[in-house]
Amino acid sequence: MEVITSVERMKEVVDAIRAQGKRICLVPTMGALHDGHLSLVRMGKQHSDVCIVSIFVNPIQFGPSEDFATYPRDLDGDKEKLQQLNVDFVFAPDAGDMYNRDFQTRVELQRLPNHLCGLFRPGHFAGVATVVLKLFNICKPHVAVFGMKDYQQLRVIEQMVSDLNLDVRILRHPTVREPDGLAMSSRNSYMSPEERVTATKIYKTLKEVEERIKAGDTDAVSLETYGRRQLETSGFSVDYFSIVDPETLDSVSEVAGSVVVAVAARLGKTRLIDNIIVTP
Amino acid sequence: MEVITSVERMKEVVDAIRAQGKRICLVPTMGALHDGHLSLVRMGKQHSDVCIVSIFVNPIQFGPSEDFATYPRDLDGDKEKLQQLNVDFVFAPDAGDMYNRDFQTRVELQRLPNHLCGLFRPGHFAGVATVVLKLFNICKPHVAVFGMKDYQQLRVIEQMVSDLNLDVRILRHPTVREPDGLAMSSRNSYMSPEERVTATKIYKTLKEVEERIKAGDTDAVSLETYGRRQLETSGFSVDYFSIVDPETLDSVSEVAGSVVVAVAARLGKTRLIDNIIVTP
Repeated sequence: MEVITSVERMKEVVDAIRAQGKRICLVPTMGALHDGHLSLVRMGKQHSDVCIVSIFVNPIQFGPSEDFATYPRDLDGDKEKLQQLNVDFVFAPDAGDMYNRDFQTRVELQRLPNHLCGLFRPGHFAGVATVVLKLFNICKPHVAVFGMKDYQQLRVIEQMVSDLNLDVRILRHPTVREPDGLAMSSRNSYMSPEERVTATKIYKTLKEVEERIKAGDTDAVSLETYGRRQLETSGFSVDYFSIVDPETLDSVSEVAGSVVVAVAARLGKTRLIDNIIVTP
Repeated sequence: MEVITSVERMKEVVDAIRAQGKRICLVPTMGALHDGHLSLVRMGKQHSDVCIVSIFVNPIQFGPSEDFATYPRDLDGDKEKLQQLNVDFVFAPDAGDMYNRDFQTRVELQRLPNHLCGLFRPGHFAGVATVVLKLFNICKPHVAVFGMKDYQQLRVIEQMVSDLNLDVRILRHPTVREPDGLAMSSRNSYMSPEERVTATKIYKTLKEVEERIKAGDTDAVSLETYGRRQLETSGFSVDYFSIVDPETLDSVSEVAGSVVVAVAARLGKTRLIDNIIVTP
């Protein structure tokens, strides 16, 4: 496993791999790797000859009041985990190499970010789309793997790939959960032991709403209100509890076809997100 | 020469060309080709094995009050000219194939468009950057040729290529002029014979300002005022007459190093632009 920090070196490597006719997989991460990430890597390896995992805490996707400075970083631990999975390359670029002084470009989507987390994190998805496009252009993957826990991010990337005619196939990886149902996230480490117990309520509530939909409840607004109240009663500050169209992320008033039930809620200083796709 | 209208077909063709190890050149145009375009094509051919000329009047770079509907179109005439130059492929996609119903992505630059034409054509350079990025992703050129008459466009593309880590080399082609100095432009056809005579005043004024700079005049504001008045006296409505930094397009107050002297002025319903790079 080679660890590459230079954009130019990474480009040389992928050009040589492509010249050999080999298929490249990219798994973009911000590091602090957990079993969810590792599962994405295993999926990527199944669809490629050469696997690149990028580790980059992307400054331009964090708002000024967000946790860029405190976001967990553990490059040595990450490398060890990836080595054990026989990953071929770790791409861990310097921020100054990714964004030089003159940098001024953003990839902006006009509709998908006007929903869910996008309403609470202005500029976040432009920052995500921009860095992912740069990583695609540097690493030239045939396939790239994204986790479904960040469902809005996944949709933004899928839409960008389609709109910009990119030749990369996006693989969706199901959300990986702790035994008690909590979606794995690097930010889970922010929680106190007490908050960690309360956090299980998020997935439980999503599953309750799923049961109600399966039982024939189609009134999205009352289902959303139910979900939000369940979490508020447990001590969460809820950014949204929303039932949306899986493609456009537009709110639905009546659950007719498949929907995404998505939630963002804060527990102390930890903001957690989760979602499930439900088919009535 | 093959004329291709399908995005998918164009991608298949360039993938096969790249697999043969051949170098691809792209010359992006909006058609209505004049000798300036043809000179760009000749330059591109010198730097590549296979030359693609795209012809696409890009709707998203026109404002609602601009000339999208009336922009000159002559696909048959264009094909004939390109055939004579032994161009390999003309890529003339349908607007619906470039922008489907769900399309919502824009490439936005944060500083370069806040100057010159960008101030008079909101959204124009986002539309340009977006379509050029799509054309790059579809045609996968090693080199692409842009004319220096559209200097701000050229800088936007160069900056996007750098910021997004694209593997395409941008070739700058000097502005091609009519014998009387008028910069060639598809929009020149909008002018009446009388306006066409007056239009020569633009390049004459640029050259006068160049002479003054070469003679030691460094006061950018007074030079700009001089240029603007010369054109207004001739009947132009001047959008700007500006002396700017060649990289950032920021205004300069004193001409110390190389500058771009750039002008946009309207004559009746025709908006003309031109510029020269001047080194004192």
